[in-house]
Amino acid sequence: MIVGIDIGGTNARALLIDPTSAQILDRRQVSSSGTGPQLVSTLAQIVETFDENSSQPVDAVGLAVAGLAHRSGVVRYSPNLSDLLEFPIGPDLEELVGRPVVLGNDATAGALAEHRLGAGRGCDNFGFVTLGTGIGTGFVLDGRLVKGASGFAGESGHMVVALDGPVHVTGMQGPWEYFGSGNALGRMGQEAAAVGGFPAGVALAGSVDAITGNHVSDALADENADAVRIFDEFCRLVAVGVSNLVMIMDLEQIVVGGGLVRIGEPLSSGIQNHLGQLIVGSGHRPQVEVVLAQLGADAGALGAGLMAVDLL
Amino acid sequence: MIVGIDIGGTNARALLIDPTSAQILDRRQVSSSGTGPQLVSTLAQIVETFDENSSQPVDAVGLAVAGLAHRSGVVRYSPNLSDLLEFPIGPDLEELVGRPVVLGNDATAGALAEHRLGAGRGCDNFGFVTLGTGIGTGFVLDGRLVKGASGFAGESGHMVVALDGPVHVTGMQGPWEYFGSGNALGRMGQEAAAVGGFPAGVALAGSVDAITGNHVSDALADENADAVRIFDEFCRLVAVGVSNLVMIMDLEQIVVGGGLVRIGEPLSSGIQNHLGQLIVGSGHRPQVEVVLAQLGADAGALGAGLMAVDLL
Repeated sequence: MIVGIDIGGTNARALLIDPTSAQILDRRQVSSSGTGPQLVSTLAQIVETFDENSSQPVDAVGLAVAGLAHRSGVVRYSPNLSDLLEFPIGPDLEELVGRPVVLGNDATAGALAEHRLGAGRGCDNFGFVTLGTGIGTGFVLDGRLVKGASGFAGESGHMVVALDGPVHVTGMQGPWEYFGSGNALGRMGQEAAAVGGFPAGVALAGSVDAITGNHVSDALADENADAVRIFDEFCRLVAVGVSNLVMIMDLEQIVVGGGLVRIGEPLSSGIQNHLGQLIVGSGHRPQVEVVLAQLGADAGALGAGLMAVDLL
Repeated sequence: MIVGIDIGGTNARALLIDPTSAQILDRRQVSSSGTGPQLVSTLAQIVETFDENSSQPVDAVGLAVAGLAHRSGVVRYSPNLSDLLEFPIGPDLEELVGRPVVLGNDATAGALAEHRLGAGRGCDNFGFVTLGTGIGTGFVLDGRLVKGASGFAGESGHMVVALDGPVHVTGMQGPWEYFGSGNALGRMGQEAAAVGGFPAGVALAGSVDAITGNHVSDALADENADAVRIFDEFCRLVAVGVSNLVMIMDLEQIVVGGGLVRIGEPLSSGIQNHLGQLIVGSGHRPQVEVVLAQLGADAGALGAGLMAVDLL
């Protein structure tokens, strides 16, 4: 048996996975707060509980975190988990549970899961793009997961798309995730409402400042014309980053994941509609397919588990 | 024996290569003008001449062109070779010479050559970035050449870095190569000179409009303070695109090639100096090394030959 755990800023989602069928046999969710040693102790308890309740022993553990997850098992830097700065979570957990532990970036793990079990099946060159608070990405090229030199591949949300643009909360000037994340959709709703261009959003949220991406997507579901316009511009800005990734790596498919996936088909077709204009020579290359992720919030934990399977 | 040919907009550079030692045994340069069939006929003559003059027969041929070189051997689109639009140069040459022919993008081929024989030896995750009229790139990840789904990987010069920026000759708005190519260096010299900020450039070129990248680099070699300032800003703009590539793919090294390499060490250190500021979390990741390419103008033809070796 395999345990895959996605450690988010608030909670850790743990799955017990059958390594042969990749089926989820059990699941648990715990708080991820506390110091590094406290978290390691919490994770070790989960592994032992899974082990005790399972018909077969746990053979290996996979962990996923946002940010710079080193191949060695050290979290070099995670924006959501400041307590884990330069913390050797992999080696420490490995010592405590006596089983091999592998650490990966959450979006990279998600890409592996969508490749093996989800929307990326049968596609050897694709990008997994999660749209949430920020933007996370993972890549499969020639059928192989791209980890990068240290394991840090996929930090594409920080890619500069506006040299002289606004400074993001990360300190970067004009990064893709300033324009293309779920937070950006809410900001664009507020900006439109502030000049009287989104009264439906104000009605839904109560005030201009209270408008979030959810209000824009709710108004979009109601076919509100302002929301349609705001959302189309948002999709264009997502597509700018996507087209950069396609031109750099020649991806044939983009799997869109993260919180915004609940918007559904308007999101995938909205992004795809702008790619033809943005990709140079698009008349001479196959159309890039934009599809929705299939594994939802389990993608990171499943992918972490699959990384651990590859250890065996 | 292997023949590697880099087909540029004006000339084709052909090398006879020993597949075991990768040594260049003979070389030829011919005009690349004319229709597709004329070019195929010219290339076939080169192959036959090499074959006749060599102690061992030619076993395979590799071709490199700028732009969208499909894995199938069809040039889908090449900015320098408009006569080759959707032209099956690989299959047609294969039929004429009776030997396997492989086609690749020139910068992708250059990356392979620098990896096996040049500045990228021993480095499993690196980017080859050529700075000339535009910007070309090729990548090696986990020790493998990145070709992409169709063979189109590495069109990073078109990557948008300024959403609302100026429209480039390619029709793209704010692409990296508008800011970071050799042409950009000349334009920056002209812009500085137009407001009285680069009198040395005007003296060298004769007029503001006559200033090219060469004049900026000549003034830089003379340690002209204006040229130092212009060149540092140019290096920052190159570094914006380089840092995007590093964050996306977690590259450990950047090999800089193309015409601007003659500037030497100020180019590599100039780019490297800006990366720390641009790469998120750079205090928690290994420093990316920026080095100069070692194979000069032979990189594309050598890499095309190495792709052909891989066929055998």
